[in-house]
Amino acid sequence: MAKAKPAESAKLKERDKRTLGKIVELADDVSKKTLGGREPIFHIPTRAKSNTIWNKKRGILEMGDARADRPLFDLKTAKQFMQTMLHGSTIKDLIESGKTSSLRGVFYKAKHTVAGTKENTFDTQDESDPILEDLEVTLGALREELHIFAENRGTLVGNITIVDKGDEIDGRRMGSGGWGIPSIVEPDVIQFKKCEAKFVLHVEKGTVWNRFNEDRFWEKNNCILTHGAGQPPRGCRRLLQRLNQELKLPIICVLDCDPWGHYIYSVIKQGSISLAFESSRLAIPDAKFLGIRAKDFKECNLGDAVKIDLSENDIKRAKEIAAYPWFEQHKGWQKEIQHLLNNGFKMEVEAMINKGISYVTEEYVPERLKSKDWLD
Amino acid sequence: MAKAKPAESAKLKERDKRTLGKIVELADDVSKKTLGGREPIFHIPTRAKSNTIWNKKRGILEMGDARADRPLFDLKTAKQFMQTMLHGSTIKDLIESGKTSSLRGVFYKAKHTVAGTKENTFDTQDESDPILEDLEVTLGALREELHIFAENRGTLVGNITIVDKGDEIDGRRMGSGGWGIPSIVEPDVIQFKKCEAKFVLHVEKGTVWNRFNEDRFWEKNNCILTHGAGQPPRGCRRLLQRLNQELKLPIICVLDCDPWGHYIYSVIKQGSISLAFESSRLAIPDAKFLGIRAKDFKECNLGDAVKIDLSENDIKRAKEIAAYPWFEQHKGWQKEIQHLLNNGFKMEVEAMINKGISYVTEEYVPERLKSKDWLD
Repeated sequence: MAKAKPAESAKLKERDKRTLGKIVELADDVSKKTLGGREPIFHIPTRAKSNTIWNKKRGILEMGDARADRPLFDLKTAKQFMQTMLHGSTIKDLIESGKTSSLRGVFYKAKHTVAGTKENTFDTQDESDPILEDLEVTLGALREELHIFAENRGTLVGNITIVDKGDEIDGRRMGSGGWGIPSIVEPDVIQFKKCEAKFVLHVEKGTVWNRFNEDRFWEKNNCILTHGAGQPPRGCRRLLQRLNQELKLPIICVLDCDPWGHYIYSVIKQGSISLAFESSRLAIPDAKFLGIRAKDFKECNLGDAVKIDLSENDIKRAKEIAAYPWFEQHKGWQKEIQHLLNNGFKMEVEAMINKGISYVTEEYVPERLKSKDWLD
Repeated sequence: MAKAKPAESAKLKERDKRTLGKIVELADDVSKKTLGGREPIFHIPTRAKSNTIWNKKRGILEMGDARADRPLFDLKTAKQFMQTMLHGSTIKDLIESGKTSSLRGVFYKAKHTVAGTKENTFDTQDESDPILEDLEVTLGALREELHIFAENRGTLVGNITIVDKGDEIDGRRMGSGGWGIPSIVEPDVIQFKKCEAKFVLHVEKGTVWNRFNEDRFWEKNNCILTHGAGQPPRGCRRLLQRLNQELKLPIICVLDCDPWGHYIYSVIKQGSISLAFESSRLAIPDAKFLGIRAKDFKECNLGDAVKIDLSENDIKRAKEIAAYPWFEQHKGWQKEIQHLLNNGFKMEVEAMINKGISYVTEEYVPERLKSKDWLD
């Protein structure tokens, strides 16, 4: 019953063949070493701040060359070795059957009690997810290529036609709901067709997206409108990057004027430490930050109602972010963060409603776009 | 700039005229009393467990008749009185301009320092949201009718065509992403067109939805497939109820076998205490619980890997839920919850992957549907 259509499994996609080859190679190496009387050992690239490099020229965070050994015959690593093999086997099954699974599904697939013992392969998903990331970096294959998805998050609407698993999604006719951005948006699943849009406006939250969609901002300003429900997940970031690289669309962000908004922008732009190994597939070095800006309180003549006092934690985070290499070397951002600290308060996009229900969609953003007033 | 199109505001919808009439009536009453030298006072229906009634005949939770007075000339209620008036005014603006706002937007719209004092109208959104619920029950108008939305949450795909603000959404051609279920799904925004589907399968989470969508469950079983990202928000529940009442589609739920899954089901079916005043617009008394069932561990011959031990809190919650009047009087549910407690472990839908990647979509659910093996 649980088989994929023969047609699908017979003609494995090129990408899948490559990934499968890498998994088989990893397993072959283990068996060869074992049969040859040598100890099997994995070399796992290190995912940590200490092994993260800021590539100034490319404008992205990258992973360095440090690796950690994971030998089988070591009490400290034997279990992880076995876990790595188990997940490798699940991924092989997924690829061969042309199916995908959630992170939690992969955990459950591998979870069992080792025969003849009381030892579980995995106790919680917290043990399982990092092993999958290990496999990503070791195989040099992204999670999407391992047929693993996370929760879908984020929504799109606007002047573009997207093909999603063969279905044509007309972004111009998606009503008030929009198209849910899938977790896997690689070119073999998602293709771009007709696109009139000249840029992407990416907003932080669904409620802000609703305001822009209700006012048909994307129609009036010929663009695509997206949100990522806070810190955008990989699927959303990858889609934005593909729109940027393949269709040459600028990605313009409207986020809150607080350290969280700045951090979301930095992740969209340069990547994150934990996913540094795939910055080149996710980061968008020329993404722009249109607002909300610290100067807006005076410049837009906003009322005191928009102010939310910075907490001690906000101040700490703002200073940390100012010290990130990519912000540290940017005069505009140093000024912006200093201005935020001098203000002593943060401002949310939704606070702009204080100036009128559609002030942000009909005055603030159009004016800033016209004068190209943004940080990049 | 921030005005609605004249055409739109000129011909207010019937629903909006009614709501506007109620707000004006509320305000008129205040001014009449004031001018007549009497004290203005609101009578707010009480939203609490003590004022929630289980209507056995209708199978839903309802709000009782208890009310609390909110006089202007009382130090304890004067501020809330003013807050109620402020939000009433914002809602009037929203309706007249044909726009909607988020809960947070309404908070910001009303937030300011009272002239000549150091007193703020609202300090945090926590003060603002309950005032809006007060207005809902006092006016007898739902949040949607007050033009206020929450975050969009949940996704739909399947054999139905939906019209969303005039755009035709073909649920059969929504790819891997699906159509985002909006926060407001009233008939003047969302209409149903061609529908071949014979039922709705509602699953708990987006990752489970992905599994069912990838296996094209809705196509093979002629249904609509939805999820609500955990506890479904009002928009999702209202959409399910409309599909049930208007198209006579059974709503069949696949949720985790734990107190949280049972609670989600009870809210879908009978409503919740906090929103008892709108159960008749949200509750679906004939919704069915297909699984995961406590008996499945043995009946489906599942491995130990699917077990997650019940925590003390789980046990406490399970007992609380068993004592809800609508569960208390249901033999099947008493047995189900007792079985869960006897098992001593919970099981998630995603754990079924242990029996095969598509076991749940290709064997488990189709077999249960065929034999009508569910709780209701």
